Amino acid sequence: MSRVIRVAAAQMGPNQKSSSRSEILQRMIALLEEGARQGAALVVFPELAFTTFFPRWLLDGEELDSYFETAMPNPDVQPLFDRAAELKVGFYVGYGERTPEGQNFNTAILVAPDGQIVGKYRKIHLPGSVEPRAGAVYQQLEKRYFEYGDLGFPAFRTGAEWKDAIVGMLICNDRRWPEAWRSLALQGMELLCVGYNSAAYDPNGGDRESAELRTFHAQLVVQANAYMNACWAVAVAKAGNEDGSGLIGGSCIVDPNGLIVAQARTLDDEIITADCDLDLCLQGKTKMFNFEAHRRPEWYSRITGQVGVKEPEKVA
Amino acid sequence: MSRVIRVAAAQMGPNQKSSSRSEILQRMIALLEEGARQGAALVVFPELAFTTFFPRWLLDGEELDSYFETAMPNPDVQPLFDRAAELKVGFYVGYGERTPEGQNFNTAILVAPDGQIVGKYRKIHLPGSVEPRAGAVYQQLEKRYFEYGDLGFPAFRTGAEWKDAIVGMLICNDRRWPEAWRSLALQGMELLCVGYNSAAYDPNGGDRESAELRTFHAQLVVQANAYMNACWAVAVAKAGNEDGSGLIGGSCIVDPNGLIVAQARTLDDEIITADCDLDLCLQGKTKMFNFEAHRRPEWYSRITGQVGVKEPEKVA
Repeated sequence: MSRVIRVAAAQMGPNQKSSSRSEILQRMIALLEEGARQGAALVVFPELAFTTFFPRWLLDGEELDSYFETAMPNPDVQPLFDRAAELKVGFYVGYGERTPEGQNFNTAILVAPDGQIVGKYRKIHLPGSVEPRAGAVYQQLEKRYFEYGDLGFPAFRTGAEWKDAIVGMLICNDRRWPEAWRSLALQGMELLCVGYNSAAYDPNGGDRESAELRTFHAQLVVQANAYMNACWAVAVAKAGNEDGSGLIGGSCIVDPNGLIVAQARTLDDEIITADCDLDLCLQGKTKMFNFEAHRRPEWYSRITGQVGVKEPEKVA
Repeated sequence: MSRVIRVAAAQMGPNQKSSSRSEILQRMIALLEEGARQGAALVVFPELAFTTFFPRWLLDGEELDSYFETAMPNPDVQPLFDRAAELKVGFYVGYGERTPEGQNFNTAILVAPDGQIVGKYRKIHLPGSVEPRAGAVYQQLEKRYFEYGDLGFPAFRTGAEWKDAIVGMLICNDRRWPEAWRSLALQGMELLCVGYNSAAYDPNGGDRESAELRTFHAQLVVQANAYMNACWAVAVAKAGNEDGSGLIGGSCIVDPNGLIVAQARTLDDEIITADCDLDLCLQGKTKMFNFEAHRRPEWYSRITGQVGVKEPEKVA
C-alpha cells in the first residue's frame, strides 16, 4: 500500500491586534481551501493562529480573556471546522486554551478529515518570563499567561485517510528541544507538525541576530531533528510585521533525510505542499536510527535526572 | 579575559591496510606541526586515527590485535606526544583501546598542551553488527570488536592554556545522537570534539545515498547540535578511498549559532583552523537554551525509560 500523504503548510501573514476574529478566520478558510484545491489531506496552521501573538503585550482582564478559547470548536471557529469536514481535509491548529477549571495553555489540536479532534498537545517548552521586562515595549510573557503543558508528548496513530500515520505535535520553541522530538520518535512518529511565532529581531533593539540567522536556526533544528528521528516535519510560521513586531517566515516541509522539500517564499498567507511518503522513514528507523539496536539509555540519566547545568570539577 | 582558543581540525586522508604505523604517525606529526604553525592550541584528529578503519574487515588473532593499543601513550605513538608537548599543542585522538583486562573499546583521549592525558571517552553509540553480513565484501563490525563505552559522557574542565574551556568528546556515530550532546551540555560543555570515519557510499552497493547526502547529514547534525547545546564543535574526518571503501570528508568547525566557520575542501590530509570564542556560548546558554529556566525533564521519561519504539494505540 502506498503511504503517501499530501500535506500543506498554511503559513499566515500577521494577525494585527486590530484584525477581527472573523477576518482572520476567513483568511484561514481561504488557506484551507487552497490546500484542498492542491490535494492536501492535512493543512498545518501556525501557533496561536486565531489571534495576534498576544504574549508580546502585558494584559489582563477582559482583553486578555479575549485571546483564549473556552471550548474547541466554538462558534467563532466553527466555520473552519465545517469547511474542513466538507472538503474532507484535516488540520493542525494552535490556539490559547482556557479550560473549564480556568487553566490556560498554549495548545495545538489535530483534527481529522472527518472533523473529529484526534489529538491535543499543550506546549511544554514555554519561553519568555513571568514578570514583564521593565522598560520594554515588547514582552515575551508566555510563562505568565500559560501553564506548562500537562499532557506530555503524545503521538497519535491516525486513520486510513492519513495512511495510519503516527503524528506528533509540537509548538514553536519546542522544536529547538531535541528531548521533545525524541519523546515523540520513541512512539514511532512519522510526521511532526509544528506551528510557530518566532521573532525576526529583538523588537526592543537588544541584540544583533538578523532575521536570516533566526530563520536559519528555525530551519536547522527542524531539518536535523527530522533526520535524527527519521520522520517528516511540517513547520509553519505566522510571519511578517505583527503589531510592529517582526516575525520570521521560512515555513517548510522537511523529509526524513533532513532535506527541505518545500518552503515559503513570502512573509504572508501562503500555501506550500509536499507529498510525504511515510515509508521513507523506514530507512532511518530500521538502520542508522534503529533505536532498539543502538540507543544506550543507561548513559542518558542526566537528561531526566537534572534540569540545569552541573559543571565538572577542574582536572588537577 | 578573552576566552578565544584557536582550534585546528586535522582531517586525514585514508590509512591503507598496507600503510605502516610509522608512516601514518609521520603524517599526523606533520598535521600537528601545521596546526601549531597556524597558532592552534588544540588539534583534533579523527576516530581510529592510527590505523585503517579495521571494523570493515572480518579479522581475528594477531591481525586484529595489531589494531589495538595496549597502553597510551606507547612506543609507536610516543613521537606524536613528544612533538605536541614540545610545540605546546594539545590534541584529541581516537584509537582502538585494549585494556589490561582484555576489554576492547573505541576510545578517544584529550591530551593537554603539557602532554598530560586529561580526558578519556569510550564510544557508546557503536553502529554495525556483531555478526558479519553474509556475502558482503565490506563489513561494519564495531559491535563485534568493541564493548559499549563504560565511562558515560564526561565533560572535562581544562586549564588556563585552553582558557578553562569545558570540553566534551564524542566519536563518529555518537554525533548523530542528541542524547550524547545533551548529556555533555548538561555539564556546561563549551567545545565538542568528534572524530569520524563515515562511509561515502555503501561499498557493497546496497543503497542510493550519495556522498553529498552523507556529508550533508554529517554536517547537519553537528550544526544543529552545536546550536541546540550552545557550544562550539570540531568534527574531523578520516576521508577518501581507504582500502577500496570510500569515506566522506567535510571536516568542519561550527560555532554556537550552528554556522560552519571553517571546512575542509579535500579528502586528504588537511588542516583547517578557527578562533573559537568560548564566550559566544553565553548567548545561547543564558537565553534560548537556559536549561535551568526552560527544560522540563518530568516529561522526558521515555528517553531514559525505554530503548526502542513503543507505538501508540490506534485512536478510535
